[in-house]
Amino acid sequence: MKAGAGQRLESLSGDIDRLLLASFLNSGGEFLSGEDLSATAGVSRTTVWKRIESLREHGFLFQSVPSRGYRLLSLPDFLHPAAVAAGMTTKRLGGTLVTYRETGSTNAAIARLGEEGAAEGTVVLAESQFQGKGRMGRVWASPPGVNLYASVLLRPPIIPLDAPQLTFLSVVAVARTISSCTPLTPVIKWPNDILINGRKVAGLLNEMTAETDRVATVVLGFGVNLNMTQEQFPAELRHPAGSLFLESGELIDRIAFTRRLLEELDELYGKYLNGGYGAIREEWISLCGVINRRVRIEDGSALSREGVAVGIDENGALLLQRDDGRVESVYTGDVSLCG
Amino acid sequence: MKAGAGQRLESLSGDIDRLLLASFLNSGGEFLSGEDLSATAGVSRTTVWKRIESLREHGFLFQSVPSRGYRLLSLPDFLHPAAVAAGMTTKRLGGTLVTYRETGSTNAAIARLGEEGAAEGTVVLAESQFQGKGRMGRVWASPPGVNLYASVLLRPPIIPLDAPQLTFLSVVAVARTISSCTPLTPVIKWPNDILINGRKVAGLLNEMTAETDRVATVVLGFGVNLNMTQEQFPAELRHPAGSLFLESGELIDRIAFTRRLLEELDELYGKYLNGGYGAIREEWISLCGVINRRVRIEDGSALSREGVAVGIDENGALLLQRDDGRVESVYTGDVSLCG
Repeated sequence: MKAGAGQRLESLSGDIDRLLLASFLNSGGEFLSGEDLSATAGVSRTTVWKRIESLREHGFLFQSVPSRGYRLLSLPDFLHPAAVAAGMTTKRLGGTLVTYRETGSTNAAIARLGEEGAAEGTVVLAESQFQGKGRMGRVWASPPGVNLYASVLLRPPIIPLDAPQLTFLSVVAVARTISSCTPLTPVIKWPNDILINGRKVAGLLNEMTAETDRVATVVLGFGVNLNMTQEQFPAELRHPAGSLFLESGELIDRIAFTRRLLEELDELYGKYLNGGYGAIREEWISLCGVINRRVRIEDGSALSREGVAVGIDENGALLLQRDDGRVESVYTGDVSLCG
Repeated sequence: MKAGAGQRLESLSGDIDRLLLASFLNSGGEFLSGEDLSATAGVSRTTVWKRIESLREHGFLFQSVPSRGYRLLSLPDFLHPAAVAAGMTTKRLGGTLVTYRETGSTNAAIARLGEEGAAEGTVVLAESQFQGKGRMGRVWASPPGVNLYASVLLRPPIIPLDAPQLTFLSVVAVARTISSCTPLTPVIKWPNDILINGRKVAGLLNEMTAETDRVATVVLGFGVNLNMTQEQFPAELRHPAGSLFLESGELIDRIAFTRRLLEELDELYGKYLNGGYGAIREEWISLCGVINRRVRIEDGSALSREGVAVGIDENGALLLQRDDGRVESVYTGDVSLCG
């Protein structure tokens, strides 16, 4: 096995499983006849039967009664691509969905697919990561079965200078998804973390490949702590961390959360391609916890800078107003609230 | 064989061959004793003998006379890493040098090495490329044995916004090398072509991988037409093309040219890391054929823009003064002189 490649659990690039599962999920637990399923998916009844047998092997529980057809009793406890894709309303994302039981990192896995020519909108999901990555080479704790580890491949027609705009887009998508799937109120920490009650619940790691004047690929990488419990966090953390379960007291439906995130991303990306970055930036600013607050920026050098965060610019830099009134553009670093 | 990987001809990451060849190249064609060579390279006389046998197998011609030692009669007719590295004065580049007989493209080959963790300064050379790449997915004609196809891997501690600066650095390095190795006067065409007498003799294709706020790798890719003859050019070319041989009437020593290019790059990169981009930009501007000239920019859209090229900015954009006096930053496109 190639280092870091991991075990590919299941991939989806056809529509049959997706159409069948959408029907079952919309059926309210009722029986569906083989004939109806055959018509819905546009395949023979034999193919319907074969696909259902295949889904059974992957943990979907079906009841079948000769005179009535099939009924979906339960979904498998992992991010099965067809379960995620069932009923999903995206236009550009998720045409190909691949789930790994375990991989080095979803970003590394999708980068390999990108090199092999994978299409825009390809999505990689993983149940766990053994080399989960945070920004600046840091580790991202990635226990199995409880969280969301996902990467999305884009091939946007933009120049490298504009690529950080997609980071803001992806942060807004996660914030929207949290607001939609939980009663919690997400707060953005520049540039790409999401906090609930001051604890980090999501991080993004976006990576690009580019020529001097055009972007080839952008990988949006998501780590969202969904149902992680306190004892699953590493003992030593740079910043306080939490999960949506710990903050809300409610278990998160991982499949529904993933589907919703892809839908939000898809909508924002469509808007972005149609010139909508301005509106996305406004939304980012409205969700951001540091705007108009006094912050300290540490960029790894001995010097740290303080000032008031007054906005973000076209290229994603944080605008920091220093005490002498000058406004500086901050491109990299860790930001923390002062006092 | 992995698609695009090609046949790796010879690689060098040790110093013995390099030290031995430097001694021979400095000897003025005289015999060197096994004892002296052994002392120079810091290895046993048996190792000296084995290395010379190995070099013979790769096309170096040695005369050996029992009482007098060895004498180098001729170099092989390819970019042997040890021949390129012999006597080379670089500090950061060329610690590892790999030459391919043929590969898809040197950029693709070094990108694979970069993923495997290759060190900053790694260099890939090729005798020919079967998927030679120009900017924007165009083809770069790459016949065997006559030109220079090279890529250099850097891991600079910079933000993505600054990466285009390395394009200007690399163009200046090529211009300096042409001025040093030929009687010709190179002219830079923004952003990354070099013309002699209006004909394109060199192109650069620089690619990066980056996170949102830090660069991981930059690959500087060089195609320089050294000894190519007229009939080796494709029938259909977007722009007039030439070679240093065609423009000067003199055959270029490919090994010496390659070594000198790496030395110029190394010096400029050291200067850059020490805050010297300003001086490099000034040099670029002094070599540039479009500054203060009226130009047309075509960026692939239906609209072309005209104006006077008045400079380049910190991020590598061409500053174009329009007829109404506004100065626009141009990040991408083909530039041509008007009228």
